[in-house]
Amino acid sequence: MHTLVQPGSPAPERGTAARVRIAVAGATGYAGQELLRLLSRHPFVNLTAAMSSGATASRKLPGLARLWSGDITPLSPETLREAEIVFLALPDAAAAGLAPALVEAGVRVIDLSGAFRLTDPAERARWYPETHRTPDGVAYGLTELERDAVADARLVANPGCYPTATLLPLAPLAGAGILVPASDIIVDAKSGISGAGKTPSERTHFSECHGSLAAYAVFSHRHGAEIEQGVASAAHEAPAAPPHAVTFVPHLVPLDRGILSTMYVRLAPGTTEDTLAEIYQRAYAAAPFIRLVGSSLPEIKHVAHTNFCDIGWRVDPSGRAVLVSVIDNLLKGASGQAVQNLNVMLGLDERTGLW
Amino acid sequence: MHTLVQPGSPAPERGTAARVRIAVAGATGYAGQELLRLLSRHPFVNLTAAMSSGATASRKLPGLARLWSGDITPLSPETLREAEIVFLALPDAAAAGLAPALVEAGVRVIDLSGAFRLTDPAERARWYPETHRTPDGVAYGLTELERDAVADARLVANPGCYPTATLLPLAPLAGAGILVPASDIIVDAKSGISGAGKTPSERTHFSECHGSLAAYAVFSHRHGAEIEQGVASAAHEAPAAPPHAVTFVPHLVPLDRGILSTMYVRLAPGTTEDTLAEIYQRAYAAAPFIRLVGSSLPEIKHVAHTNFCDIGWRVDPSGRAVLVSVIDNLLKGASGQAVQNLNVMLGLDERTGLW
Amino acid sequence: MHTLVQPGSPAPERGTAARVRIAVAGATGYAGQELLRLLSRHPFVNLTAAMSSGATASRKLPGLARLWSGDITPLSPETLREAEIVFLALPDAAAAGLAPALVEAGVRVIDLSGAFRLTDPAERARWYPETHRTPDGVAYGLTELERDAVADARLVANPGCYPTATLLPLAPLAGAGILVPASDIIVDAKSGISGAGKTPSERTHFSECHGSLAAYAVFSHRHGAEIEQGVASAAHEAPAAPPHAVTFVPHLVPLDRGILSTMYVRLAPGTTEDTLAEIYQRAYAAAPFIRLVGSSLPEIKHVAHTNFCDIGWRVDPSGRAVLVSVIDNLLKGASGQAVQNLNVMLGLDERTGLW
Amino acid sequence: MHTLVQPGSPAPERGTAARVRIAVAGATGYAGQELLRLLSRHPFVNLTAAMSSGATASRKLPGLARLWSGDITPLSPETLREAEIVFLALPDAAAAGLAPALVEAGVRVIDLSGAFRLTDPAERARWYPETHRTPDGVAYGLTELERDAVADARLVANPGCYPTATLLPLAPLAGAGILVPASDIIVDAKSGISGAGKTPSERTHFSECHGSLAAYAVFSHRHGAEIEQGVASAAHEAPAAPPHAVTFVPHLVPLDRGILSTMYVRLAPGTTEDTLAEIYQRAYAAAPFIRLVGSSLPEIKHVAHTNFCDIGWRVDPSGRAVLVSVIDNLLKGASGQAVQNLNVMLGLDERTGLW
Repeated sequence: MHTLVQPGSPAPERGTAARVRIAVAGATGYAGQELLRLLSRHPFVNLTAAMSSGATASRKLPGLARLWSGDITPLSPETLREAEIVFLALPDAAAAGLAPALVEAGVRVIDLSGAFRLTDPAERARWYPETHRTPDGVAYGLTELERDAVADARLVANPGCYPTATLLPLAPLAGAGILVPASDIIVDAKSGISGAGKTPSERTHFSECHGSLAAYAVFSHRHGAEIEQGVASAAHEAPAAPPHAVTFVPHLVPLDRGILSTMYVRLAPGTTEDTLAEIYQRAYAAAPFIRLVGSSLPEIKHVAHTNFCDIGWRVDPSGRAVLVSVIDNLLKGASGQAVQNLNVMLGLDERTGLW
Repeated sequence: MHTLVQPGSPAPERGTAARVRIAVAGATGYAGQELLRLLSRHPFVNLTAAMSSGATASRKLPGLARLWSGDITPLSPETLREAEIVFLALPDAAAAGLAPALVEAGVRVIDLSGAFRLTDPAERARWYPETHRTPDGVAYGLTELERDAVADARLVANPGCYPTATLLPLAPLAGAGILVPASDIIVDAKSGISGAGKTPSERTHFSECHGSLAAYAVFSHRHGAEIEQGVASAAHEAPAAPPHAVTFVPHLVPLDRGILSTMYVRLAPGTTEDTLAEIYQRAYAAAPFIRLVGSSLPEIKHVAHTNFCDIGWRVDPSGRAVLVSVIDNLLKGASGQAVQNLNVMLGLDERTGLW
Repeated sequence: MHTLVQPGSPAPERGTAARVRIAVAGATGYAGQELLRLLSRHPFVNLTAAMSSGATASRKLPGLARLWSGDITPLSPETLREAEIVFLALPDAAAAGLAPALVEAGVRVIDLSGAFRLTDPAERARWYPETHRTPDGVAYGLTELERDAVADARLVANPGCYPTATLLPLAPLAGAGILVPASDIIVDAKSGISGAGKTPSERTHFSECHGSLAAYAVFSHRHGAEIEQGVASAAHEAPAAPPHAVTFVPHLVPLDRGILSTMYVRLAPGTTEDTLAEIYQRAYAAAPFIRLVGSSLPEIKHVAHTNFCDIGWRVDPSGRAVLVSVIDNLLKGASGQAVQNLNVMLGLDERTGLW
Repeated sequence: MHTLVQPGSPAPERGTAARVRIAVAGATGYAGQELLRLLSRHPFVNLTAAMSSGATASRKLPGLARLWSGDITPLSPETLREAEIVFLALPDAAAAGLAPALVEAGVRVIDLSGAFRLTDPAERARWYPETHRTPDGVAYGLTELERDAVADARLVANPGCYPTATLLPLAPLAGAGILVPASDIIVDAKSGISGAGKTPSERTHFSECHGSLAAYAVFSHRHGAEIEQGVASAAHEAPAAPPHAVTFVPHLVPLDRGILSTMYVRLAPGTTEDTLAEIYQRAYAAAPFIRLVGSSLPEIKHVAHTNFCDIGWRVDPSGRAVLVSVIDNLLKGASGQAVQNLNVMLGLDERTGLW
């Protein structure tokens, strides 16, 4: 009989001393629950606290039974300060209020809210008026594009779900200078309902969503500004040059998890699908979570419950290009990327705890 | 060119004088909206008022644009009294409070709540403690079984969605005396989420329902008592005889509209599928909304958006029978049956406005 | 007791002699079944035959029990010729083969396939190579835009589902001359799975679609050519003028029935949301199935199981406009519009049998 | 800056020599794909071959990109014999044909088909007539109940999905002798569509399933015999004693992954919910994948994409009990349990590669 020695645990054993003390604030929302699921089995993490701003007493989450034995406790800024790294999965205003003091107390922060994503003060004041103070050492946490900044950051502003799906395909093209100058960029994005958050509302009622489909927040979604910032940053545009206008329209589709972003851009004459393949292969040669599927086009089904972003593209002879990307909005679009950033901050393989 | 004279309207024209003045209280819930949709095109109905207990000012429902030009107005008992027939699609307590006075004022009432469904005072006090007073002239509105009582009723207690789907197959068997005496009746029912009502809650959140399935209210759902009453009534059981114990377990399934009820009964020795076919054909010979599908078994898809109840059955040599029925919970399980009852009350073809 | 005389039937009674003899070829696909459902209750229709090219013997459709008592029979061109009007809900090649002879035999045809939709011979040869011969008297059946042509047509080429949803919002703007000349038109369309037809395939497998989303046929869907033809036709563009390039990308979304089309256009400076409201109100003043929802944006849920097309729009100060429309792909996008065209051909109210 | 040494890989590193050579036959079905996903990251597995009986040339699976670099190759019995352990995820007949020779060649087999699950020759001949020969050393692979037999088995007959969900709650009660002798056991089971397999058919078409629900195979599903065998085995019933009659009715529900089984049993007088809690806690004290949720009842959502089986129960004063269990049909109901059995066969922690 072929028998191997049984390991003490399916995860590689490490002394608690070698693990990093991690706390999560906002543990009961959809992103927060994913964080707990990921962190509870991460081999270098010692999950010391999981808090909910809505909790008035300790409680358990049924889906986490047997995976994590701890309790969800009421939000306590003091306890957060005892961690080495804190994940904030809170509403924008709560994160804007908590983060600066944590950073000043020497705690590194990975913030899943939008409070610190926009760098232009006017834009930030417009879209995130609750953010009155920004700590030093902020990095924008789109891991594949900002690895070095994330490694050294005191606070990582984890990107929005739509910007993650949209900037991963757009940024390399903007960076390569092959977008027709000042041409329109259309982003037609489709998200599962978990992207609307866990609070019950008419919009998230099953019977309102099932069998239906709707656009929302046309011209008025915060993620539009985040996408424009990302494209401009990738293009290193001089202030005088007319920036690309981004038209961003999100839609809610009747599925739980996943975003598909369809982007319409105009490319310099002569650009082909092969040109794009080369640009993407160069940009993402060392990115374990980017999969390039080219003209076969990606589907949400292949990335749901993973941290992958699959990217496809088609170019017609006139230079019109259609880019399509897919992610799991709760993983690569939120908690998975947050853990990916944790790994970069700790000098670990990016895939640790995510594979 | 073949051309026919154009009628003034797709509905048969009738003077307003020949139509019955109808008001609806509770017009914005899922059952209420279906009622408006049905009544607005009913050829004998003059829909004079549609009210919502939650409304503070008049408003429109987007889905009804072009179908009905009226406004939803705040609930007004005085205005209700001006109608000849009032539909109540309100919570149990509100219906229990409003209905007796309306009946006493000479208005006929079709009540979609549960307030007046149970006839045994002890059972009613247990499950509907808000019902303090019952008007005279109440009929239980399971149309196919109670046509005569409905025709003369002052108040029709429109059945629950689960009892409708369950009693239509069970009652003829109980009435034929072929259920093994005192044998267990198991009712495993599955309902779409619209059955949980329109109020947003964690239970009705898309992300909690999509891809999931759960039983609820085991041993504690009011419709269990309504089913037991219906079976006993069909069996004309003497008080001394041990009644059939009904075990009723409802489940929420990830679809919007529809109920499938699976029933497990024990039949007298020698009963075959043909026996059941004869019993059902006799019972429902004159019932336009009952379709008997026998051993091919019914599917929700064939009855969604209709007022049909499809019934199938299988019997094994031991006498174990499995009955399966399907309805649209908002139509045959609520508003469709209410309009069917209206037709019976008015002496119309049952199908008027429902075909 | 208030009692009205019972009509013999819920449908207005007419002698069979006054009804038009109608046959359906292709009665078992999703569009064909909807046709039967609509025609079986149409007050001016005598449904004399329903055929399926796949049928080898007569059979029943379970969902139509009690609605229509006829049988589905094998396809018979001879029997089709006995009807006054024939609906073809067949694959393109079959319709291309059958239609010319029917028209020449004096039968009027409403063709739901794409065989006769494109008028430019080169485009037709490219996208519908099976169409070798076009009968005289063809009208493009987008009812609201082609009412007069449809009234007199010998053959109505019923539009594609995507073009219906897309041209109803685009055509009035192109006709008003407010699209920036030669500007790009982006059409990002999302369809329920019934649009992919009834033949089982990996693409239509529940487990491949549920929880997923994908773009398909980028730059290569026939409906792109049909949309370009419709925009050009509305704009009365001189052959020398550069036409609007239409980029059309369809997506399959995990719902059964419905299309939402999101369109991105550039408008002449100074155009506002009010400008669009005026244009649409003028264009659709007499169109009972067009509902204008303006900036509140439409949802599939409000049009599913109806023949409505709801249209919304948003315009930003730069002249970028986003148009959103929704239809039920099997009704307004196929069988509903076909019956609407029947009504126009017969001089009936457009809504007859569709309300 | 807090930085840890980066491990070479997220999985614990082991030389290929220390890994077991594993081959999979039937790698492209839904269960097969899950197997590849699990085995490709299993720290003790060297996945040497993945075959498909339908493949005529090597190919890749898009969902496995970056997870496993191998190719799917045509089925080759010779190559299978080079593995130490072979997983068969094939149709019953193919598995029945291949397995005996593999076992005789010294290869251990984990068979996901039904070919070797039934031990009574008459029952096996009735339900699996393709199984002509059974090798020695067969164990029924319901891990929690058969751990010792699995450890030593030459061939593990991995249980059906419905029997897994149903026997885990039923067997401990049968074993404890608290079921009323000869009382009926009703099993009303609901499965996601992936349980119907990957071959496209009308039954698995999205538009046939979405918004619908149906029972199927009443009195004629093979898993009914497997459940009866499991209950009898747990009860150690003497051949003369009347066995419990199991009525098993499966339903297809519109979700992708998951089974919920609702069971109706009669318990000895005096049995309470606490009695059941004690029985289950004793039975599953050492079972990492069983979670007991008692009267709060389980939901598919908590076990989807995991190897857990959650079990709940309610008992009324009359001794009627309702048991509810949930599993992911592709994991605990198929591939997850197969890997769990692999772990037991190798003397590993059951959770290895499954956590």
